Amino acid sequence: MKAYFADEQRRHDPKSFLSSGAPKPNPEVPERIERLLAGATAAGCTIERPKSFGLGPIAAIHTPEYIEFLQRIYERWQRIDGASAEVIPNIHPIARGGSRPDSAVGQAGYHMADTSCPISAETYDSSCWSAWTAVGAAEAVEAGASSAYALCRPPGHHAFADVAGGFCFFNNSAIAAQRLRQYADRVAILDVDLHHGNGTQGVFYRRADVLTVSLHADPVRFYPFFWGYADERGEGAGLGYNLNLPLARKSGDEVFLEALAAAIRRIDAFSPDALVVALGLDAFAGDPFGGLSVTTSGFARIGETIARLGVPTVIVQEGGYLCDALSGNLTAFLTGFAARHKTSP
Amino acid sequence: MKAYFADEQRRHDPKSFLSSGAPKPNPEVPERIERLLAGATAAGCTIERPKSFGLGPIAAIHTPEYIEFLQRIYERWQRIDGASAEVIPNIHPIARGGSRPDSAVGQAGYHMADTSCPISAETYDSSCWSAWTAVGAAEAVEAGASSAYALCRPPGHHAFADVAGGFCFFNNSAIAAQRLRQYADRVAILDVDLHHGNGTQGVFYRRADVLTVSLHADPVRFYPFFWGYADERGEGAGLGYNLNLPLARKSGDEVFLEALAAAIRRIDAFSPDALVVALGLDAFAGDPFGGLSVTTSGFARIGETIARLGVPTVIVQEGGYLCDALSGNLTAFLTGFAARHKTSP
Repeated sequence: MKAYFADEQRRHDPKSFLSSGAPKPNPEVPERIERLLAGATAAGCTIERPKSFGLGPIAAIHTPEYIEFLQRIYERWQRIDGASAEVIPNIHPIARGGSRPDSAVGQAGYHMADTSCPISAETYDSSCWSAWTAVGAAEAVEAGASSAYALCRPPGHHAFADVAGGFCFFNNSAIAAQRLRQYADRVAILDVDLHHGNGTQGVFYRRADVLTVSLHADPVRFYPFFWGYADERGEGAGLGYNLNLPLARKSGDEVFLEALAAAIRRIDAFSPDALVVALGLDAFAGDPFGGLSVTTSGFARIGETIARLGVPTVIVQEGGYLCDALSGNLTAFLTGFAARHKTSP
Repeated sequence: MKAYFADEQRRHDPKSFLSSGAPKPNPEVPERIERLLAGATAAGCTIERPKSFGLGPIAAIHTPEYIEFLQRIYERWQRIDGASAEVIPNIHPIARGGSRPDSAVGQAGYHMADTSCPISAETYDSSCWSAWTAVGAAEAVEAGASSAYALCRPPGHHAFADVAGGFCFFNNSAIAAQRLRQYADRVAILDVDLHHGNGTQGVFYRRADVLTVSLHADPVRFYPFFWGYADERGEGAGLGYNLNLPLARKSGDEVFLEALAAAIRRIDAFSPDALVVALGLDAFAGDPFGGLSVTTSGFARIGETIARLGVPTVIVQEGGYLCDALSGNLTAFLTGFAARHKTSP
């Protein structure tokens, strides 16, 4: 399988992170890339650099005011007396309506859902390349590959059309799915990250052409808290095209695979022409977030199970943080997937 | 004029404050009380302690889930490993809908609009007494006094029915207005604080029995950023019962008094049976927030102008921060008001 990655994705190196109100080191570190590259290589992937696709595929998902915000906010922030080094929001609208202020502080609150996605001088550029990595993998599948892996970092699934959040700026999985729509009538996104794919859900919540399915730790006591409940099923034309499968904390392989079987049934009933796997590896028992208890061999079984759908598949990297098994978990998933994946010509 | 105040309001002593993403000392300090007591006394007020009115008048404005949140969140926060000393939110919903998590961190984001209203062990109790101070003043006017002053602190006008924000927890002005509704068919709230009274507006946005009018620095580049624009006129039954008069930064007495004349015309056309003045003193030229340039003699003229409405009036303290003239500005307002205020029997 080909894997896509661009060196520019290393530059984004966020420092601040407010967790339970207190400052902590930000866990979404560039070192994740080295671990994931090693894991992909061990699974037999060859690494390719994506080309730059310009703003087109990003603007197909994100609003122009949000893209302009990400382009300019770091420079604007430097002009505020006594501001933080990175852009961090400190006020939030109750509802995103008509009133979007001109103020940099106000716009930071408007376009950033939380304090875990600080913006530095490198954030916009790294996020563009992370998105292009996803587009490169989608293009490879469109060109006939049965699957491709996008080593996206920063991750994407918490980013809405006009809101950053949870280490995410551009929604790489959504961008890949939208790109696949150029040839595929129906695209499914299956999110197996520890955290609910709230941004991805939000992007497609009123659409019937992209089915969004997410397995994750129950948000009632876990990030992202306000989304990811089983009763969120889509709205308008999208009603019935979103499935959330929240799992009890510390659930292990058997519970995860049982929920995955339900996810696969739903995706199969949608009969997608292409699939995006939003591949978080933080459901691992040893991940620093400690939300679920999937094992390394569990990731192999998850890969095998998804492969049985027999659909052309773009695998987009989401979360998964520094721990001894991060490389091994990616290798296990990709190896399990590749062993069983066959698409009809 | 009688002034109301309870010693318990001194206990809330917030430390943290994130401004433009960076930590600063919180300016809403207990010392404000001493300055305001001195200012009221110099204007001839006698200070009375309100009685405890129980939760009734607070629950008439705020949701039970929000009240329970304020009662319990500090204790719950102490059980989180590595949490901040005060309760500070670090994630926010995009819209307040059905999904309210059980998690303390999630609820903090749900019920707190920004990082300027940290909650300590004393916050709930001080906020109750601040609300009861407003109720005490409203009860005095209901009992026949032509006016009364409530030295409310913490302030209230940024608090919505279920959201704290901007140093505010319970909306004292809204609570006073609702109390006045026991005998008054129509109540107007006139907010002359430097900042838009977004919480007060939110509480009454769909109601025609309480007219809300606010003069403030233009939110396009000023807190609270997302509210306070001239096109916010109320909704449903409340359409036409909200008036915002945003002013250019650094506007002085003449601009302020011209806008105030427009506010007075609108209030006069509403023919209220009672008036609440949400009295911020931070429009002062020397206030640390530096948003407008009203002078001490300007506050006297503001008081005189409002008095000419000839309506029974509860004056509720909102913002106004430590500076040399804080006491004098309150004295000027109250003296100007008292010199012209006459209500028909």
